[in-house]
Amino acid sequence: MTITSFHPPRRTLMGPGPSDVSERVLQAMARPTVGHMDPTFIGMMDEVKTLLQYAFQTKNELTFAVSAPGSAGMECCFANLVEPGDKVIVCQNGVFGGRMQENVERCGGIAVMVYDDWGTVVDPQKLEAALLENPDAVLVAFVHAETSTGAQSDAKTLVALAHKYDCLAIVDAVTSLTGSPLLVDEWEIDAIYSGSQKCLSAPPGLSPVSFNARAAEKIQQRSTKVQSWFLDLNLVMGYWGGEGKRAYHHTAPVNCLYGLHESLVIVQDEGLGNSWARHQQNHLALRAGLEEMGIGFLVPEQDRLPQLNTVYIPDGVDDALVRSRLLNEFDLEIGAGLGALAGKVWRIGLMGHASNQKNVDFCLNSLRAVL
Amino acid sequence: MTITSFHPPRRTLMGPGPSDVSERVLQAMARPTVGHMDPTFIGMMDEVKTLLQYAFQTKNELTFAVSAPGSAGMECCFANLVEPGDKVIVCQNGVFGGRMQENVERCGGIAVMVYDDWGTVVDPQKLEAALLENPDAVLVAFVHAETSTGAQSDAKTLVALAHKYDCLAIVDAVTSLTGSPLLVDEWEIDAIYSGSQKCLSAPPGLSPVSFNARAAEKIQQRSTKVQSWFLDLNLVMGYWGGEGKRAYHHTAPVNCLYGLHESLVIVQDEGLGNSWARHQQNHLALRAGLEEMGIGFLVPEQDRLPQLNTVYIPDGVDDALVRSRLLNEFDLEIGAGLGALAGKVWRIGLMGHASNQKNVDFCLNSLRAVL
Repeated sequence: MTITSFHPPRRTLMGPGPSDVSERVLQAMARPTVGHMDPTFIGMMDEVKTLLQYAFQTKNELTFAVSAPGSAGMECCFANLVEPGDKVIVCQNGVFGGRMQENVERCGGIAVMVYDDWGTVVDPQKLEAALLENPDAVLVAFVHAETSTGAQSDAKTLVALAHKYDCLAIVDAVTSLTGSPLLVDEWEIDAIYSGSQKCLSAPPGLSPVSFNARAAEKIQQRSTKVQSWFLDLNLVMGYWGGEGKRAYHHTAPVNCLYGLHESLVIVQDEGLGNSWARHQQNHLALRAGLEEMGIGFLVPEQDRLPQLNTVYIPDGVDDALVRSRLLNEFDLEIGAGLGALAGKVWRIGLMGHASNQKNVDFCLNSLRAVL
Repeated sequence: MTITSFHPPRRTLMGPGPSDVSERVLQAMARPTVGHMDPTFIGMMDEVKTLLQYAFQTKNELTFAVSAPGSAGMECCFANLVEPGDKVIVCQNGVFGGRMQENVERCGGIAVMVYDDWGTVVDPQKLEAALLENPDAVLVAFVHAETSTGAQSDAKTLVALAHKYDCLAIVDAVTSLTGSPLLVDEWEIDAIYSGSQKCLSAPPGLSPVSFNARAAEKIQQRSTKVQSWFLDLNLVMGYWGGEGKRAYHHTAPVNCLYGLHESLVIVQDEGLGNSWARHQQNHLALRAGLEEMGIGFLVPEQDRLPQLNTVYIPDGVDDALVRSRLLNEFDLEIGAGLGALAGKVWRIGLMGHASNQKNVDFCLNSLRAVL
């Protein structure tokens, strides 16, 4: 049987990511491929670095995009910072804290878990209690913006606690980057990772990361090799890093980086403050419409991520049927619940390019039609 | 300083990869992003799998594209198949055998190295001697098509030797897939990885892999967890695999997979045999022209890869200057030597879409003009 070219439908992506990709970014993806050591490409990588420093609000030299999706960005942080035997306090309040535990353990570390209910934020008091009980801990890891629940934890406070007890902090910012305030230097975050396909609205496949000097020092002083050759920052930075000559490490995903570059130029042109405000404004509009329909939020108001609205599925409503009708009749994707929340909630994203009044209205009207 | 959109030059890519990407594939990359769990996308993934089975000439169920470049495909094979303490015989005849050794050791395995000169093929007699000396070895790894030298080893014979001594074989086919004969099932290769940016002529960022039933069984019977969560095949296959329900693992690089799909449709439409013959024919044309210019090959004729021509830099010629003039005056990229061959050779690729008579003539004329 002969297979023919694939022509995807044009969806409106209002799930937990990927979000809608603008025509500008899609067209950037289609520009001619150049070599991964081409001087023009190296120049573009430098610009991606500068633009990511702006998006993360950091001066960290070690700021770049891992050549793989967000899960690999997470692994890059853990594989480089965790040595066998290291004790790591992991705060879990959703799916992705559990993935952090997996990462710690697969790196030979010892994960001490601090649990909070799904839909609530990480409780700083519980973290402090764990730090007091585990004076030998060297790292704290938590999710700033839980993509599985839509809860936003207080990263600044949690990082300060980690530092008070001589730990470095690894922060998951997959869903927060450019969608809500995130200040890597001001909050003194040591290592952070994100994804290209959330509020940046580039296609999935790249994971922006940033490491400060303390994190870089821990990596340089490792007594064991990083277990992943592909993610070993000592090697990757020879390609992405510093001034002077670049060394071949792996072949970067050239066209994906074109897309990320374009999405970051859009962020720069809008301005971070405007981007945060836009996400908040569209969240409020969506909230008003949902509340009119009697649909309630999982997360308490003050802890909600504007870019990811997790709402209870109304009683008696068939989860899968509604999502499938939205997809098939309206070309509208909203997200299902993950893990313990499967079947109980929907996750409605208003991320990046997809965060606009037109989408808010479209989503509300489509939901009204289907329910 | 404001950064603006990036507009790459239009190069002719005749290095060791990435190779020229056709307009068809570039346009596929720019199609609208859909969700990574969208039924239409899942259907496309199934087609990618079918098309990769054709390209690899295999019926292996476990055939898919790792969501990251070839280096991660290599790591996927080693991280899944090597358990701590496993002895692995690694044949090295260029840069990438050395990277295999790094992978084995970072997975806690013991690498027994078998060396051959760069530019020559892996010597089956040396491999057999190593297998006899190491009856406790469980894996053999080698590079089918050494991207650093252009030498093509006899994969069928090497795999048969591995099996004779009860080892599984991991094969690097980054540069051979669709460019020269590669028969995964007939040669009984247990695990194999490639890259999207060589003879497939898709942009870099994806790594096609395939594992047979013996390899899958070894992975399922591991007594330790795979050290990489991102690359753990037990988890990845819940997303890519089998019939029935797909489980979320990571967010696939949606638009990159559009590109790979299109490139595989092109391979299917041309036919593998025609593709191999075209690569051979253009290699012969390039060889004739280079020999006329007095430029000689590193690799003995019978062992040469048609898609990667490694030639000696003529005496007295400034390597960097020539490559930079080709790039700046002709928008033509050819490859530098890697590792021990840096400054001694050029690597001229005729891969995939870039393997055509026009490019052969263009490369020869440009070289003549510059030398």
